[in-house]
Parts: sequence; C-alpha cells; structure tokens
Amino acid sequence: MPTDFKLQDSPFQEFLGLKLERFEEGMVEIRMPFRRELLRASDSDWLHGGVLSALIDIAADYAVATQVSGLPVPTIDLRIDYLRPARVGDLRAIGRTVKVGKTVAVANVEVLDMAGTLIAIGRGLYSAVRS
Amino acid sequence: MPTDFKLQDSPFQEFLGLKLERFEEGMVEIRMPFRRELLRASDSDWLHGGVLSALIDIAADYAVATQVSGLPVPTIDLRIDYLRPARVGDLRAIGRTVKVGKTVAVANVEVLDMAGTLIAIGRGLYSAVRS
Amino acid sequence: MPTDFKLQDSPFQEFLGLKLERFEEGMVEIRMPFRRELLRASDSDWLHGGVLSALIDIAADYAVATQVSGLPVPTIDLRIDYLRPARVGDLRAIGRTVKVGKTVAVANVEVLDMAGTLIAIGRGLYSAVRS
Amino acid sequence: MPTDFKLQDSPFQEFLGLKLERFEEGMVEIRMPFRRELLRASDSDWLHGGVLSALIDIAADYAVATQVSGLPVPTIDLRIDYLRPARVGDLRAIGRTVKVGKTVAVANVEVLDMAGTLIAIGRGLYSAVRS
Repeated sequence: MPTDFKLQDSPFQEFLGLKLERFEEGMVEIRMPFRRELLRASDSDWLHGGVLSALIDIAADYAVATQVSGLPVPTIDLRIDYLRPARVGDLRAIGRTVKVGKTVAVANVEVLDMAGTLIAIGRGLYSAVRS
Repeated sequence: MPTDFKLQDSPFQEFLGLKLERFEEGMVEIRMPFRRELLRASDSDWLHGGVLSALIDIAADYAVATQVSGLPVPTIDLRIDYLRPARVGDLRAIGRTVKVGKTVAVANVEVLDMAGTLIAIGRGLYSAVRS
Repeated sequence: MPTDFKLQDSPFQEFLGLKLERFEEGMVEIRMPFRRELLRASDSDWLHGGVLSALIDIAADYAVATQVSGLPVPTIDLRIDYLRPARVGDLRAIGRTVKVGKTVAVANVEVLDMAGTLIAIGRGLYSAVRS
Repeated sequence: MPTDFKLQDSPFQEFLGLKLERFEEGMVEIRMPFRRELLRASDSDWLHGGVLSALIDIAADYAVATQVSGLPVPTIDLRIDYLRPARVGDLRAIGRTVKVGKTVAVANVEVLDMAGTLIAIGRGLYSAVRS
C-alpha cells in the first residue's frame, strides 16, 4: 500500500464531497458530509438511494485498492441492502476486504450515520488483476 | 398508472440530469445526458460506476412505480453487473418489472450507450406495499 | 463447443436427476424431474429453495461452459430471486450467457414450471479463464 | 423463540444430513457432515456449489426464524460469494440476522471448513411477516 494512499481526483466523488478518514491494509473509512444535492426529493429529508450505492461502491473499491495497486480497480458486480432511511446528516462508510485473490476480490461495506446506526450494507466484487 | 406519470423533483436526479423518455405499465426508459461531473476520474473518459448504480436504481424504481402508486417506492436491495466501461456520451436505462407482488416487487434494468451496446445490467427488489 | 457437450458425472446432479434437454452456443435448457426428496418439508408440496438455487447455478454454469471449454467452470457469485413457490412437478431451467469476457462471464437463468409459469430467476458470475 | 427450536422435517435437508449445533436469538450454527453424494463430480474432491448455496439459504432462514415464529420463512432473494473450494470434509454454516423488520429480514451466513477457513459467504432476504 502506497504511503500516500488517497482518493483519486474524480469529478463525481467531488460532487459527493467524500473524505478519506482512515485506511489500513484491507480497510478504508470514508465520510460523506451532508449536502442538499444528495436528497431523494426536494421535500424529503432522506438521502437518495443512488447516493448510498455510489458511496458503498467507492468504499469497497478503495478497500480492495489498499491491497492491490493503491489505485481504484474496476467493479465487476455490486450488491446493496438498504436497512433504514438515511436522514439529513453526514454518513460514514467502512469498507473491508473479505478476500483478495489473483483475479478478483470481494469486499464488504457498512454505512453508518453519525449516531452509529447501520443504514445500509453492501458487498462487491472487484478486479484484482495486478498490472 | 397516473396519466401525468413523471420523475419527481429530486435534487440528486437533477444533478444526474435524468429525463423520462418513455413509460408504460411495467416499463420506463430514462436518459442520462453526458456531463463531466459524472466521470470517474478527471483524466478518464469513463463514467463513475456509482453513477450507473444510481441510474439503475432509479429506472427499476420507476418501473415498479408504474404499477403501484406512480410515486417512487423504497428500494430494499439492488444488484448491479458492470459489463463494459461507460465512455463519454449519453446513456439510456430501460427498467422493466418482473413481478409486482403484494409486499415486494422485482425489476430488471439494462443500461445501453447510444450505439445500443449493453453497458450494465441490474436487478432490484422494491417495496410494493400500497398505502 | 464440443459436439458431445453433456452434463458431467456428478453425484449431486444425479441426486437432482438433471437432464440436459437442449443446448446451443450460450444457452442450455435443463430439466429437473420431480422427486419427493426435493421437498422443503415432509408435509409440504413446495420444493426446497436450496434445490432451486442449485438448479440455477448449474444452468448458468453450463450456459457459460458452451462458450468456454465445454466443461463446468467455477462459480464466483450467484444471485437468486424467488418469485413463486415451486409446487410438486417437474421444473425446467433455461440458462443464457449475457457476456463472456476474458476472465469472467455473466449468465441469466429462468426457472419455469411445466405450465410455463416463471418460478425463480437467477444471475451468476463465473470464471471464464481458458486453461 | 420456542424452547424446542429445531430443524423441521424436510426430505431435502435430510439428504444434506444437516444438524443444528447451536442457536440463540438471531443466530444458528448448522453442521453438514461430508457424504459423497455432495460432490461436484465423481472424480473430484470438491463439494458441489449448489450444496453450498442450499446450506447458506437454510442457515440464513433459520437465523431469521429464531426472531420470527421459530419456523422457516420464505426466501425472497439470496446472494452467494464462493471464496475457496470446499474440499472433502464437514462444513459448518453460521447464520446471523442483520435486521428483522416488519415485512422483511436480512441475514448473513459464513460457511467454514473444520479448520476454520472461510469457504463461502452469503446474504439473503426473507419474509418476516408474522402470521
């Protein structure tokens, strides 16, 4: 894992406002500060589900990246379970690898609100081919 | 299905720039025009995977909505398979219900580029409880 | 695809009683004749969900096999949606590849009863590495 | 949870030879003793992937059952990740609920060999409607 491990410049991730809070071999924690553009509806205080799926994909991807090249890897497939509405407020996503093989890697993600309530969980499969 | 069926006001969907192109009982087609904020990296011409997962969730959800209340319904779980990179250009997502039951509904989505190439597929489970 | 394409000798597949009914490039149809050992409960006329997940895995796997070596390939991940109970009677599973890449392949499966009713759908990711 | 919580009479589960080893609120551990009928091929020492998907479905289902009626509940959808081949030998599956809501429940499963190596993981969605 490179010592300067960080989120890559990404227009979409900048829109989401993501911040890498912690990382170690096989794990990242990413924070998504609340902003109104993330809401599911103008008159709702719930975040859009698509925002959560994107956050989960990114946290799983960077968890794998810590064990591959340090750079984001292609997502092969992604599965999300929405457990509770994400209401107005920051979220944090903790991604952890389950297995990093020679061609593919599996990672789990938990998304929590700032009170520590579990909002959504996800699991994804990523390309782990070393270039 | 209400005759004025349409995408709801949603800050996140407006960011994505989504347009409802077609709909009928059990089907919607949504177009996502290209914009640079959707890119995975500043120096890439691939769209971010999180943008695709959001688009798939929305197309499946509105396909279910055509058979329930006409309004978006809660996503229970979502699964995405990324088949090919989505390069610079518009995308269209076609969502179709597979089954709408009394409590849950299943829908499939295909995401195609403007040349008709299949970019990603998804399947989701939605709450179909009538209020 | 080898001209003698067939289900391999497999103790578990023999227990399920599977028969390969049709195959072509990218598609297989497999029949599972009813037997009482497949029931979910002694006093039920529903098949066990685990029998359906196995049938779906096998149909997707052999669909991929038609485009790789003709032999079963390792399953990487599998997703099943149960739509309706499978009652006493034969089932048929139709597996079709969606994409066969250089390292992985995606396939869809539909399970139907003999009246043609859709019972379950599945999608799986398989290793497509040529040996 | 009923004090006489147990696996129901089920022809398919008897074929698999399942034994309920432990249970508590939200958790079950099920053992599957090795038998040759579970092999993927006559000349292989790997268990069939369909056997693993069935074991995972059952462990998740009974984990949910501990928090609902004590009886198996309908599976809505199921997702399996195969991490390593399951070679000749007993397996154990540990199912744990993630959330049991009013209409649906989510559970995780880990399948381990007798050396404690993680072989497969799964997650499923179950009907949690109380009758």
